Amino acid sequence: MAKKAFIKVVLKEEVLDPQGKAVLSVLKSSGYGNVKDVRVGKYIELDFNEDKSGKRRPLEEEAEEISEKVLSNPLIEEFSIEIK
Amino acid sequence: MAKKAFIKVVLKEEVLDPQGKAVLSVLKSSGYGNVKDVRVGKYIELDFNEDKSGKRRPLEEEAEEISEKVLSNPLIEEFSIEIK
Repeated sequence: MAKKAFIKVVLKEEVLDPQGKAVLSVLKSSGYGNVKDVRVGKYIELDFNEDKSGKRRPLEEEAEEISEKVLSNPLIEEFSIEIK
Repeated sequence: MAKKAFIKVVLKEEVLDPQGKAVLSVLKSSGYGNVKDVRVGKYIELDFNEDKSGKRRPLEEEAEEISEKVLSNPLIEEFSIEIK
């Protein structure tokens, strides 16, 4: 049964990403001129306890709520979740 | 043709992740007691210029080198790359 959630949190397309721009600048000055743009986000792995009762709400639902309420700022960030 | 590299950088399994522990503590005190462990890493998207000459080295190779030399600390972190 699925027990892990893998979550990516990135800034929305229209939000400026200064950290990405900084990395881009480093790459360009290090000879990686083929790189056009860089976006930096967060990657979070949530490891869940086993559901022994079988009565818990779906992992997808809990991971979604955690992503929205704790891990991201919905105003400027968006997230995607993969359950494995 | 492939033009983007999606890179995850995470602390090695045996390296303590204080940021993850902090998030875990917040989750537990917010009522998400089903979460057993949290690991926090970086997620980086590299957008490459188109290869008009067709003579450039493979994107996989360049992304691997960038990940190793610029985006991660190989002593304590490991990375995975997806090309799309």
